[in-house]
Amino acid sequence: VEPLLVIKIGGNIIDNEAALLPFLRQFALLDGKKILVHGGGKIATQIGDKLGVESKYSNGRRITDAETIDLVTMVYAGLINKNIVAKLQSIHCNAIGLSGADANCLPATKREVKDIDYGFVGDIINSRINNNFLATLINTENCVPIFCPITHNQQGQLLNTNADTVAQEIALALSSTFNVHLIYIFEKNGVLLDVENENSVIPNITRALFEQLKQPQATTGKPIVFEGMLPKIENALLAVQQGVEKVSIGNAQNLAQLIKGEKGTTITHA
Amino acid sequence: VEPLLVIKIGGNIIDNEAALLPFLRQFALLDGKKILVHGGGKIATQIGDKLGVESKYSNGRRITDAETIDLVTMVYAGLINKNIVAKLQSIHCNAIGLSGADANCLPATKREVKDIDYGFVGDIINSRINNNFLATLINTENCVPIFCPITHNQQGQLLNTNADTVAQEIALALSSTFNVHLIYIFEKNGVLLDVENENSVIPNITRALFEQLKQPQATTGKPIVFEGMLPKIENALLAVQQGVEKVSIGNAQNLAQLIKGEKGTTITHA
Repeated sequence: VEPLLVIKIGGNIIDNEAALLPFLRQFALLDGKKILVHGGGKIATQIGDKLGVESKYSNGRRITDAETIDLVTMVYAGLINKNIVAKLQSIHCNAIGLSGADANCLPATKREVKDIDYGFVGDIINSRINNNFLATLINTENCVPIFCPITHNQQGQLLNTNADTVAQEIALALSSTFNVHLIYIFEKNGVLLDVENENSVIPNITRALFEQLKQPQATTGKPIVFEGMLPKIENALLAVQQGVEKVSIGNAQNLAQLIKGEKGTTITHA
Repeated sequence: VEPLLVIKIGGNIIDNEAALLPFLRQFALLDGKKILVHGGGKIATQIGDKLGVESKYSNGRRITDAETIDLVTMVYAGLINKNIVAKLQSIHCNAIGLSGADANCLPATKREVKDIDYGFVGDIINSRINNNFLATLINTENCVPIFCPITHNQQGQLLNTNADTVAQEIALALSSTFNVHLIYIFEKNGVLLDVENENSVIPNITRALFEQLKQPQATTGKPIVFEGMLPKIENALLAVQQGVEKVSIGNAQNLAQLIKGEKGTTITHA
């Protein structure tokens, strides 16, 4: 089984040209088979402001109404995706930009309305991800798929999906064909023992350690992992439980070292 | 050699939901291998107006400055392209949206600055079109490529290219592999003997007839073909001279009949 890197970048890279180009150069140099998933960053909000598309939130989560899905389709699938593809092509990486609608790569269902209608938000149907097509692109055509976080409901409607989730769902689906290493690039050096200390990276997390990190610690009375890191690690542990080989979390400073496990936090099944 | 349809649609279809959906239904039902190329229509101008991106022209031709290439990348490669793909996917057509940067499909050079700087406008390098990849998508993967008129210079810069030209360049490049029929959908029934009479379609045009149509006619003192139709037909004649089997021009009312030559104007080598 061949290795495959699935790497996700977010706003801290996309919104910053001075970070994006060095990241893409490191990405292009990585040996072997790879997929990039990018989020949206602040560009969509900035362009939305100019267009008069108001950002709407409920319980801190974005509501994707009809105007907003058009906006994010333009910015994510158009502006960001094609600029990344053109830049990678210029440094000898055979990038191909994809949304989840293209070749039916990422079929999704519109999230059910319960208390809140989140609008055009898609939950990927993992069993229907077009693995065969992706494997052909990667194996036979030597392409590097670049995914934006837009999916579709197979009935003509584009949907907005969280980019972390897109990366995780692709990693899971392709773990039947490849030995998948899922990598989340974010602003910190890794999962930190002390959130104030960038040198306190926890190199390896398993389920057993995670259970300890969630508990209030004897010395501080507070848990080490809380808020935004909780679902990130929970999802990573689910991924490795379901077939992804490992998940790494770290910054973009040295991508090769992050992948080798020399930097950042690596989450494994045991 | 297998037949391949390369069909180009423009603003009169794209700007009009009531025309777009019926067209896509007809397109999805067409047997055999096919490619769709779409232009931009008025949506880019409307969104540009809201964003404060001024449309600039010189001698009637659009100037694509840095703001404008971002705008058309958003609208053509994002909004229009992905909505067409999602709609086709919903009617069992395995569409995949592509810009010229994706998989290096359409390498181009930025148009040289002579008297006027047209900005980020790309002239496709026909010999470098990624024929092999397109042929694999079409033949092996049963995909239907949907091209927006965005190309790239292989050095990281996206470029704006006329959609008629994109269709023609793809048709020419693939005529070494397929028996290509290039179809331009526009607002009229075809090339008309009398521009006021939609029933006066000229069914077939060859080089010899074209030379006559360009001359002032004895009865009216005016040529039959003039202005915008001149380059359309000239380019079509060049295409059939260089290996495209035939070029059809007509409206979207009955796509199957247009393709069969029962409607519209068909341009052939002899």
